[in-house]
Amino acid sequence: MKPFDKNTKILIVGLGVIGGSYARALSRQGYRVRCITKEQKDIDYALSLGMIEKGSTEVTKETVEWADLVVFALYPHIFVEWIKQYQHLFRRGTLITDVTGVKSRIVDEVQGILRPDVEFIAAHPMAGRESSGVEYSDDRVFVGANYIITPTERNTPEAIEVCHRLGEILGFARITQLSPEEHDRMIAFLSQLTHCIAVTLMTANDTPMLEQYTGDSFRDLTRIAKINDVMWSELFLLNREALLAEMDAFADEFDRFRTMLREEDGEGMRDVMRRATARRMLFDKPKANQ
Amino acid sequence: MKPFDKNTKILIVGLGVIGGSYARALSRQGYRVRCITKEQKDIDYALSLGMIEKGSTEVTKETVEWADLVVFALYPHIFVEWIKQYQHLFRRGTLITDVTGVKSRIVDEVQGILRPDVEFIAAHPMAGRESSGVEYSDDRVFVGANYIITPTERNTPEAIEVCHRLGEILGFARITQLSPEEHDRMIAFLSQLTHCIAVTLMTANDTPMLEQYTGDSFRDLTRIAKINDVMWSELFLLNREALLAEMDAFADEFDRFRTMLREEDGEGMRDVMRRATARRMLFDKPKANQ
Repeated sequence: MKPFDKNTKILIVGLGVIGGSYARALSRQGYRVRCITKEQKDIDYALSLGMIEKGSTEVTKETVEWADLVVFALYPHIFVEWIKQYQHLFRRGTLITDVTGVKSRIVDEVQGILRPDVEFIAAHPMAGRESSGVEYSDDRVFVGANYIITPTERNTPEAIEVCHRLGEILGFARITQLSPEEHDRMIAFLSQLTHCIAVTLMTANDTPMLEQYTGDSFRDLTRIAKINDVMWSELFLLNREALLAEMDAFADEFDRFRTMLREEDGEGMRDVMRRATARRMLFDKPKANQ
Repeated sequence: MKPFDKNTKILIVGLGVIGGSYARALSRQGYRVRCITKEQKDIDYALSLGMIEKGSTEVTKETVEWADLVVFALYPHIFVEWIKQYQHLFRRGTLITDVTGVKSRIVDEVQGILRPDVEFIAAHPMAGRESSGVEYSDDRVFVGANYIITPTERNTPEAIEVCHRLGEILGFARITQLSPEEHDRMIAFLSQLTHCIAVTLMTANDTPMLEQYTGDSFRDLTRIAKINDVMWSELFLLNREALLAEMDAFADEFDRFRTMLREEDGEGMRDVMRRATARRMLFDKPKANQ
């Protein structure tokens, strides 16, 4: 496609919390945004706030070939099905990107079946909300967050450049590139494992009235236990090997700590705590973005 | 002691982050507060901000017998040692309380050795900070938080009443009573287990540069991994049986979830996620206090 500028026509497919946040950020800055999404009420909502110039609940040739850049913000398997069913509607030279939370299998599959005159460059905006739906969309979540592009040897430098520019326009603080495999290993630890922990911590103890005594540390640790079960179970299954490896590493470390406690090894526990404290310092948000 | 009023003389022993927060809240409301603490610089700091009217680095008869109410904000073993060494200095009828994060063993030990003409009523202010030291003290952390009194059959209704009033003055949103054993089981799950998880998550994976890609969920989950290793290892050892039981229950639930993922049991995972989401709703902070 042509270089990204204010004439670039952007189609968002799937106007949920992330697709909606993209629409808000892009429209606010004067870009032309249309959408295809399932529910007319979501289109009406987005139109009323000026998030899009037009929307359709149907996948029409007119809407699809209008776009220079198509952003897919769908559940992974629906994204793949969409490509199979509708890719004949793309205009030659269209660039497509996504927001999917796992990469290796999706990138492989979509790039494998995609028309040769259309390019797919994958990206992962690492920002989200616990609630689903366009009415929870909010492009402020991108501020200070990471945007990761995962190109393969099938991608052109021009497409990577457009995707980079998209991340900038959306307001991300840090835009980087990883291979799909590196991305998935990283996300297995930093995001998927943390969700597994929060969810199972929440279901490990059903003592009544516990909520009456909770402090903020438990709340913080389980904030992400309010989870979109359909999306996350799909993401976990798509990244199964990498996530199982991280779950094992965590379970082993947790068990080592448990053994120290059982054996009353105070010095061993203090050593783990000191290492945890030092390593956690690295993960503090840069001051300017707090 | 007499009913709590503006003439009540309060001595804080240990002017750290919690002792300092007590001093701030009480002085601000016109109560008379003195302290005994190790470092003269902490006394100077507190005097300069009007948090105390007087402080001493020595445990003197004059300072101890001045007090109607003594609040111990020390590491547990230092608290017990202090009582053994200095309890002869208390004036007859003095009421003492504490801020210790575990109760059964401490309450048992202190009430077991204490002079019969002095009363110890235990309490746990469930609010804290990751940083230690009086310069991080801040009584705003009490707003919206829980204050738990853990009386035993050795306590008088008058002492429980004074302790209740102290919690109110400090600004806690909810003041409740539990037995020391109930408190320790609750705290093992809600606080100690979460710290074990955060710490071991932080040390389970030492891949370089991970911090460059982190999102807020990982940050939230590991906020408490910055930990006072001396204090927390002591608290863990003092509540060893209860904490081991909670660690086992969590490890079992985590392992069940891992098995579902390994066996590609999407429906099983979605069921856990839905139950986690529903249960987590109960733990949301009351809107008024957010």
